[in-house]
Amino acid sequence: MPSRTGRHFLQIPGPTNIPDRVQRAIAAPTIDHRGPEFAELTLRLLPCLEAVFGTSGPVVIYPASGTGAWEAALVNTLSQGDRVLCFETGHFATLWHRMALSLGLDVDLVPGDWRHGADPEALRLRLAADPRHTIKAVCVVHNETSTGVTSRVQELRRTLDEAGHPALLLVDTVSSLACIDYRHDEWGVDVTVAGSQKGLMLPPGLGFNAIGERALAAARTARLPKSFWDWQPVLDANEHGFFPHTPATNLLYGLDEALRMLREEGLPEVFARHARHAAATRTAVKEWGLEVLCLDAREYSGSLTAVLLPEAHDAEKVREVILDRFDMSLGAGLGRLAGRVFRIGHLGHLNDLTLAGALAGVQMGLQLAGVPVPSAGLDAALDVLRTG
Amino acid sequence: MPSRTGRHFLQIPGPTNIPDRVQRAIAAPTIDHRGPEFAELTLRLLPCLEAVFGTSGPVVIYPASGTGAWEAALVNTLSQGDRVLCFETGHFATLWHRMALSLGLDVDLVPGDWRHGADPEALRLRLAADPRHTIKAVCVVHNETSTGVTSRVQELRRTLDEAGHPALLLVDTVSSLACIDYRHDEWGVDVTVAGSQKGLMLPPGLGFNAIGERALAAARTARLPKSFWDWQPVLDANEHGFFPHTPATNLLYGLDEALRMLREEGLPEVFARHARHAAATRTAVKEWGLEVLCLDAREYSGSLTAVLLPEAHDAEKVREVILDRFDMSLGAGLGRLAGRVFRIGHLGHLNDLTLAGALAGVQMGLQLAGVPVPSAGLDAALDVLRTG
Amino acid sequence: MPSRTGRHFLQIPGPTNIPDRVQRAIAAPTIDHRGPEFAELTLRLLPCLEAVFGTSGPVVIYPASGTGAWEAALVNTLSQGDRVLCFETGHFATLWHRMALSLGLDVDLVPGDWRHGADPEALRLRLAADPRHTIKAVCVVHNETSTGVTSRVQELRRTLDEAGHPALLLVDTVSSLACIDYRHDEWGVDVTVAGSQKGLMLPPGLGFNAIGERALAAARTARLPKSFWDWQPVLDANEHGFFPHTPATNLLYGLDEALRMLREEGLPEVFARHARHAAATRTAVKEWGLEVLCLDAREYSGSLTAVLLPEAHDAEKVREVILDRFDMSLGAGLGRLAGRVFRIGHLGHLNDLTLAGALAGVQMGLQLAGVPVPSAGLDAALDVLRTG
Amino acid sequence: MPSRTGRHFLQIPGPTNIPDRVQRAIAAPTIDHRGPEFAELTLRLLPCLEAVFGTSGPVVIYPASGTGAWEAALVNTLSQGDRVLCFETGHFATLWHRMALSLGLDVDLVPGDWRHGADPEALRLRLAADPRHTIKAVCVVHNETSTGVTSRVQELRRTLDEAGHPALLLVDTVSSLACIDYRHDEWGVDVTVAGSQKGLMLPPGLGFNAIGERALAAARTARLPKSFWDWQPVLDANEHGFFPHTPATNLLYGLDEALRMLREEGLPEVFARHARHAAATRTAVKEWGLEVLCLDAREYSGSLTAVLLPEAHDAEKVREVILDRFDMSLGAGLGRLAGRVFRIGHLGHLNDLTLAGALAGVQMGLQLAGVPVPSAGLDAALDVLRTG
Repeated sequence: MPSRTGRHFLQIPGPTNIPDRVQRAIAAPTIDHRGPEFAELTLRLLPCLEAVFGTSGPVVIYPASGTGAWEAALVNTLSQGDRVLCFETGHFATLWHRMALSLGLDVDLVPGDWRHGADPEALRLRLAADPRHTIKAVCVVHNETSTGVTSRVQELRRTLDEAGHPALLLVDTVSSLACIDYRHDEWGVDVTVAGSQKGLMLPPGLGFNAIGERALAAARTARLPKSFWDWQPVLDANEHGFFPHTPATNLLYGLDEALRMLREEGLPEVFARHARHAAATRTAVKEWGLEVLCLDAREYSGSLTAVLLPEAHDAEKVREVILDRFDMSLGAGLGRLAGRVFRIGHLGHLNDLTLAGALAGVQMGLQLAGVPVPSAGLDAALDVLRTG
Repeated sequence: MPSRTGRHFLQIPGPTNIPDRVQRAIAAPTIDHRGPEFAELTLRLLPCLEAVFGTSGPVVIYPASGTGAWEAALVNTLSQGDRVLCFETGHFATLWHRMALSLGLDVDLVPGDWRHGADPEALRLRLAADPRHTIKAVCVVHNETSTGVTSRVQELRRTLDEAGHPALLLVDTVSSLACIDYRHDEWGVDVTVAGSQKGLMLPPGLGFNAIGERALAAARTARLPKSFWDWQPVLDANEHGFFPHTPATNLLYGLDEALRMLREEGLPEVFARHARHAAATRTAVKEWGLEVLCLDAREYSGSLTAVLLPEAHDAEKVREVILDRFDMSLGAGLGRLAGRVFRIGHLGHLNDLTLAGALAGVQMGLQLAGVPVPSAGLDAALDVLRTG
Repeated sequence: MPSRTGRHFLQIPGPTNIPDRVQRAIAAPTIDHRGPEFAELTLRLLPCLEAVFGTSGPVVIYPASGTGAWEAALVNTLSQGDRVLCFETGHFATLWHRMALSLGLDVDLVPGDWRHGADPEALRLRLAADPRHTIKAVCVVHNETSTGVTSRVQELRRTLDEAGHPALLLVDTVSSLACIDYRHDEWGVDVTVAGSQKGLMLPPGLGFNAIGERALAAARTARLPKSFWDWQPVLDANEHGFFPHTPATNLLYGLDEALRMLREEGLPEVFARHARHAAATRTAVKEWGLEVLCLDAREYSGSLTAVLLPEAHDAEKVREVILDRFDMSLGAGLGRLAGRVFRIGHLGHLNDLTLAGALAGVQMGLQLAGVPVPSAGLDAALDVLRTG
Repeated sequence: MPSRTGRHFLQIPGPTNIPDRVQRAIAAPTIDHRGPEFAELTLRLLPCLEAVFGTSGPVVIYPASGTGAWEAALVNTLSQGDRVLCFETGHFATLWHRMALSLGLDVDLVPGDWRHGADPEALRLRLAADPRHTIKAVCVVHNETSTGVTSRVQELRRTLDEAGHPALLLVDTVSSLACIDYRHDEWGVDVTVAGSQKGLMLPPGLGFNAIGERALAAARTARLPKSFWDWQPVLDANEHGFFPHTPATNLLYGLDEALRMLREEGLPEVFARHARHAAATRTAVKEWGLEVLCLDAREYSGSLTAVLLPEAHDAEKVREVILDRFDMSLGAGLGRLAGRVFRIGHLGHLNDLTLAGALAGVQMGLQLAGVPVPSAGLDAALDVLRTG
């Protein structure tokens, strides 16, 4: 029976492992957030951050979680009673939907089976049924963290364009930014929502809104009450490198370093690495004779893989055994998937051998929990890593 | 001409200097925020945090700044159009007032001269003029960070009680918590708002609401739209040591350590230390022949001292000289005090010799900036430190 | 082709991976090494350190590497021209032998094939041939870091005892302390030499001598010139918690924390963990159809496994591929083993999944370097980890 | 009575305060000391380190304290029975003298009063009395850490040159390197000894020998036994960026960063800063009516100031009060100065306000300990800082 030693394997789909460089950056002394050194930091940061979103436009940084950034996206662009279209792609899409309701929006939810992304055809039909453009915004979770399904944002945009529908496109990239190819400007997204604790390799505590021009225009007339989340004071203060609220200085140090690391690796290489690790993971799952929750190969997630267990087995039991015996954290099944799936995060600061160790742990844990899986799973994953 | 070396003197009234112990605690690896180790952390934290607020009731922690916690206090207890009473004690009171307006509240502002705290007599008159109890909440900044004036919260409470007025008492303790004596329960405060980056000796990034029973009751009927800030899901999840949103894990590590440090020192000792450092600072100011902005000795702040310069001098010039020559950051005059005052923070992780160094820097900086002050200022401050 | 990201796999046989807790302990501010806080640290440390050596006697800490601690063992116990018996168990034994020569000792070297430990029978013969007890010391490397062979110290001791020979027994435990069962007192070792950077999970920079009573007695008459290495001033100063030279304060912080971690896990559990990881590794090697360098199962090392490649293959090529493709450092073949073996360190702060990842990397690297090994190697290792 | 909080004032003459940047550099993960990344580090480091010594020649780095580096200087250049000339400038000179004796050298000690540096005239006389050049080395402590007296190395060199005497000049710069102007090559020093924990702003744990050509030549014939300290294997391995022993990797990270900081500030600026802080300190001491131990203004130390108390007072009492009341560590009187002096370190990572705080603490502590000193001391020091 092994003891608890060595480095914990944090293979949940976020928060992810903080690189040592980032950890040390964060541990620097806090400085005056109204002084010249701070302004330099902000003005150096912002363009690099924008590049990660694929935008030349503004990105607002909140000292808040990604959930807060969702709220910011809504309250800056919408007014009480506005109609909003959400897609039930999984647990987080459901939460965002619930938030929209709480804020007093009129929300249509396109139902889903939690195994597919937002359906462009369903969107087409909803838009066609809205000739008077009462739908003000379409909310999509790019990579659904609860299911490991990546919606095809480009196709959704095309559908909006083809319908000539002016609804804003709001996209949650909390678990895809800096993991899965994403382009705010090129894809015509209006507001991109993100957080610090996944592909950006930081602890939780920063939320982001990348804001397109149409969203900025919408913000001028949006009437949902807002103060903390209001974009405008942030945009104004950012001009000179400052913030209207006290910024999370130490996380900004970390962000500065994390952005440096992403530039060093190169965004295309970052995306390719995630895709490769995801492919290796799915290969293992399939060789184990288990099911990847995501049913459409076009929607496989580069960030995480949700594994569906046969009915007879309890995914929570598997997670417990793995935590207990191998000191590895995996993601639980959320909402209606509770007990049915576990989720392997393979995003952020990760490399082949850590993934190999993680998959070895999953394989051994499944076996110990009584889910009979062959060792061919890991072998096949290693083939992908070795040859890919 | 000195070079930039040694440790920066961060003597703004927050963010404050992070103790090494806290810095290192924050640098620990992020863990699974849904795992058992995290739950232990939360359940260990919360009672200790409550003790700092002087409450046995719940304290909600947000991954957000203190400004966010202001918003939380309002949206959880009030409804659109509710009448709220604010006191214009300084810049931050004004910002909170503006926030209340933005959120759709009907705000009465008791004007002030920025040199006094919230006036109990003014409150008495306002309450007397409100026999039908249309005022739903009274918002007070305990320690006004822009002026160094500490309002007498207990007297305000007594005034409310004597008037038999049911308005909630919401108090901002961002720059007083763990610096200046404060007792949420004993003083009958309904919501106490705080942040991490001052007396709690953490980087910015956590906001707090201590919630009294009357506020919890009010929350049940409050109708301002809310989601991220909603207390209830946090209270529910906290029961088991979790959070509904992704918590700022690494700052919670820091909070755990900071609370340990506060317990080691003892809250009464923490308050006495701040009072002593404040007394030494005011002594220096007076011996320099300058004016402490705060005019009422009962309202002197233990956290910071705002120094008013004679008309002929520019406080910004003084701050620049001090930053440039002595690598010390002081607080600027904010709002209507811009250029007229500078602020010396003496809160958080501070000791006699650091304060002595800071006051030496202020004295030399004033002299270099052409404000003729005698060295008796520092001498007198040292007398206080030596004998106090 | 993978990018360089994630945590480096440091699987050399030391320095080993520093636990986060230790890293953070080391980053604490340096204190006055002549003050009361420092004395407390030393007096707390020393008994815990002694327990790890299995001794109740003194352990001297040098601000130096393990090599320095070798020198200390020799110069404190021996005089110019003294006869010393060394065993050629591998590269490090050879270096120690060379050091003894440099210091002016008369050294007999028992030749060896670098695949066995120090041979008790050879020792018996040498002692038998020395009726006049001209041999003053026997130097043995407990775990030979260059070969992964662990000498049977207890049997060597017994041989000395049976021969009634008074030679001192000096043992190098640089790569076995806190990895492989070792008992200074019980086994009658006279001087145990160790370093910080292996089982103690610290960066390099501390060397140790555990000193038995006979060695202390020998030190009184030993005449090799010495000053820095002289035990006596250290022992005298340690009485009060101090050191005669400036101690490596920050590494002592780390040592304090590492000793805490070892106590938490329990030394028997630490040894069992190392043995288990070593067994898993050897299982992989054998299933790969490769040879473990160590030929005697009684001498298998718990700390590292040296893998002998077939003649046709270049071990350096394998290491290069693995470093390049999988960002893992393995140990090179040293001295006469250069190019023939590579060494897998599995000591220090390690767990099952990290080992699994490391073995996966070795397997893939061998395959990429053209050494045809079956994936059954890793599979078999995982069987050990899963069932062991 | 103040509590223990805020940052400790470490004003001993070393170890000095570690800059945050250096602390964080040291906390990076240990890497393979035989890998390419390590070689890069060494090869980047060494030229920068040489520049700090003012030499183009080799500097050997030991994973050891400065005391060890003393021993290295002796055993590499001298043979048993060689005659060596030492100057009794203070406690550390005495220790070095004692070490030379322990190593079997024949040592002449020029007596001293511990208030002056090594006397060039005394040297002239000793050399004149040695026409047969039996003196093989002259050992001088550049800055005597126990007294705050800086010997005039250039004059000593000139004296040797004028005498045409071939003795090697060995200089200890443990507390002067990167504090006080020093030039190994230009001044014709043969071996310069240093440590990491003072002007280099690192924790203790590295010792240095800068080696001139004549010393290298001497090393070829020196016969004192040596192994760990032997220069040659280090010089050989350094060619390729490696070390023959396990190097103190994490301290080398810190050294890399510290050297970067010194380059950023500029060595002339570093020296000027130290001189300025020393001048301010002496000004305070004189205004307090106390005596600076150093009697010759040409020999004032830039690194520390030893303060001599009137007979009636106990310096240890003063230090205790200051540690207890103001959490500041000062240096004790060592050897024959015990109880008579205390030492203020003003070296390393220091700035004006920290020095001001330290001097304020000394002033208050003296007063509390019953040594009547006027506050004019600190005032005068501030005048120096303000105008200098």
